[in-house]
Order: sequence, then C-alpha cells, then structure tokens
Amino acid sequence: MQCFVIRGLPIIKEGDDIASLVKSLFDFQDGDVLCLASTIVAKSEGRFRELKSYHPTDRAMEVARKVGKDPRFVQAVLDESTEVLLDQPFLLVATRFGHVGVNAGIDQSNVGDGRILLLPENPAGSARRLRDNLGKDCATIITDTCGRPFRSGVAGVAIGWAGIAALRDWRGEQDLHGMRLEITLEAIVDEIAAAANLLMGEAGDGTPAVVFRGLKYPRSGEGSVFMEQDKDVIRPRLKS
Amino acid sequence: MQCFVIRGLPIIKEGDDIASLVKSLFDFQDGDVLCLASTIVAKSEGRFRELKSYHPTDRAMEVARKVGKDPRFVQAVLDESTEVLLDQPFLLVATRFGHVGVNAGIDQSNVGDGRILLLPENPAGSARRLRDNLGKDCATIITDTCGRPFRSGVAGVAIGWAGIAALRDWRGEQDLHGMRLEITLEAIVDEIAAAANLLMGEAGDGTPAVVFRGLKYPRSGEGSVFMEQDKDVIRPRLKS
Repeated sequence: MQCFVIRGLPIIKEGDDIASLVKSLFDFQDGDVLCLASTIVAKSEGRFRELKSYHPTDRAMEVARKVGKDPRFVQAVLDESTEVLLDQPFLLVATRFGHVGVNAGIDQSNVGDGRILLLPENPAGSARRLRDNLGKDCATIITDTCGRPFRSGVAGVAIGWAGIAALRDWRGEQDLHGMRLEITLEAIVDEIAAAANLLMGEAGDGTPAVVFRGLKYPRSGEGSVFMEQDKDVIRPRLKS
Repeated sequence: MQCFVIRGLPIIKEGDDIASLVKSLFDFQDGDVLCLASTIVAKSEGRFRELKSYHPTDRAMEVARKVGKDPRFVQAVLDESTEVLLDQPFLLVATRFGHVGVNAGIDQSNVGDGRILLLPENPAGSARRLRDNLGKDCATIITDTCGRPFRSGVAGVAIGWAGIAALRDWRGEQDLHGMRLEITLEAIVDEIAAAANLLMGEAGDGTPAVVFRGLKYPRSGEGSVFMEQDKDVIRPRLKS
C-alpha cells in the first residue's frame, strides 16, 4: 500500500468543486481510496452558520447550563442531532446521520468571527458525489476526528464513504498466525480514516486530502460503522 | 508514507526471537515503525494457558453465569484484569496494564484444544525489547483489535509501544484548512495500529508484521492511549 498526501489545495470556499481540485493535483487510478477531511467538504457545501442566527429553546438553555457552553452553540448541536447521550462534562450526541460525536462534530474554534462550521448534512451523499466526479473507479471516505471512550486522544474515523464497504467480513476466514476468528467484522473505513488522519496532520499546515493506493477492499457491502441503537450496549447506560 | 507487509514469517512458537525473524525478512531503516500483532508476541512469550489449569472462584462463577462463558475462562480474564466494567452481554475489563477490552484480549477461538492465549503480560516492555533488538532506531507498536462503543466492527489499536510517543500534541499549532484547533492530542499509535490492522488482515493468511516508512512522529513524549480512570467519563457510568 502506498499513501499520498495531495499538496497544493487552496483554502476551500463554498461552491468549490473539490473533486476537480484534487483531480488537477493528483493522477487518480482505479481502486484508489481518497480520504477528505470533513471540514473541507463542509466548507465546499456552505455549512457555515452564524452563531447569532440560532435562537435557543428552553431545552438548549438547560443543556447549555449543564455543559457550560453558549446556548446558541448548543442549539446548533441539538438541531444536528437526534439524541443527547451526555450533557456533561461535554455534549455527546447522535447526529442525524447516525454518527456519535461530541458537539455533533461542529467546529467552533477555527472558523472565527461568530461563525461555526457544521458537518456535511449527509456525508454518505457527499462521498458519493465526490466519487462520481473523480472520473475513476475510486472509493471516497469523509473523515473526522473523534475522542474514544476508555482511550486518550483523538483518532480519525469515517463519517461518510462511497465505493467501499464500511465493514470487511472475515466470517469463515481462517488464519495461520492466530489472528482471532471471533473478529468477524473489521471497520475498514475507520481504519483507513485513522491512517489518513495521521497524514493529514503530518504536514502541520493542513493537507486534508490523502490517497491510498494498492489496498484491496470490498467495493460494496451491507452495514455501517455507526452502530444501530438497539445493538449498542454502552449507549443506554449513559442516559441517566 | 510507504507501508510494507513482512511476508514469510513462520508460525510463531514460544521462545521464538521475533526481532531476529523480522530482521531476516526485512531491511529496516532508522525511523521505520514496526507493528506486530499481539498474538505473535504473546505466542513468543509463551502466554498459552490450559483452560483446565484455572480454578474458578465464586466471583468467577457468578460473572460466568451472567456472561454465559466457561467459568475457567472467566477466571483467566479476571486474573488478567483490575476491574470489570461490564459483565453482560460481554465481559469488558480493564487489564493490568491499563487497556480496556473485551475478555482482557484473551484469545479462545484460535488456539484450540482447551488452550487460551493471553495478551503479553507487559506489552510496553515487549515493544521495548523488540525495538532494542531491531538494530536500527525504529519504533515498535504491539497491536490488538478492539470493538468500539457507538461504532460497529473492530479496529486495530495499540496496546504497547516503544520509541514513539503515544500521543502527538498539536497544542499551539495552527491550521490553514480548518482542521480543528481543539484537537490537541492525537492518538498516533492507535492510528498507526489501525492502518497496520488493515494490512495484517489483507493477505487473509495472516501477515502479523507491518512496517511504515516515511512517517514523521515524535520519538518520545508523556502520555498513553489508555485513559486514566479519573479522566474517564464513560467508565464510571457503566458500573451499575
């Protein structure tokens, strides 16, 4: 497997055609996996919002008090969410598209001037559109970074993908060296997103597009890395 | 960054010198990161146990009833653990070395004949010994695969590392493209382990040694990917 960081991307603005931009900077081949940081996808889709455009409800005011955040910001998080899992010491929610993350992945810190940046509304759709416009048979993964229960630090995860199965199914596979048979579903889009995040951060000055070549992966398959609520053992225990 | 899968490793047995084996199959350079599946490290360290050698206590019997497992297996898990976080529907524990995982990472499925394979007793020490014997200034990461709250499927994580900081500290760093400033600690050893797991699985027949070259990483630093108990928001909520 080879990994390429696409250098030279401009600062992405609303309406920018990211597929064209990356194509102009990198010679894609069939089977490549393109990872894009959710921030640039969100920016191209105009997901900026003015904080002052939010009018917090009583519920947002209450959550804001608990979590110690601007009620307008909390309202923005609630608008993007279907469920609050934790409201202290941080605001952990399930987003409309099924991802569990702090603050619904809304970026408040790096946008400036009373503006926030939401995640793409439908990252799977974004991934599909980008893939359709790459001109090659590639996979696309929209990445975000997330904290993890029980583990320190953040790591890259996939929030949208196209042209690749989220999970690789090892059921029925055997292993000579003793890797575990009980591990049947491998979250390959998350593993690829983690690898991408490693390289996106590496340049320091922001390289939000990374390509993996030579990786064998299932092009399609059932399933998602977002755990179905009724299968989640941890989630119901948090709602106290 | 380039990724290499080390092919040709024999089935690892107790006493095998993994560092010599991988050196004989791959030409390491300073700065390389060698990832090894915990199973082969554990095997080389003789971490097999006979299930029948365990004599379950009352506590193990009680947990075994709840989780629906062999009480001797549960005793093995408890022996490797400092705390039980969940005893149903699966047995989630904190291991003696600080990792939170199902069944303390004990492999029951692929060892056969009433035997189980424990994780290395001290993966950090294993990583250090392996690094010391590579003959180059490389980093070593012992990987395992883990399920994740809120997300489906398993992904590679680091359970031991040497010659590399677990966390990369981005505090004070700026970013042109809008990657988040609030993300200050990146769990790079986990991200590398995830990337490695992707390639370990890829060959299907078991390639438990993967090398990354060309990755810039901090050689040393404070911190661990195992979250300190008093910082963990999720863990106390599970103990019900």
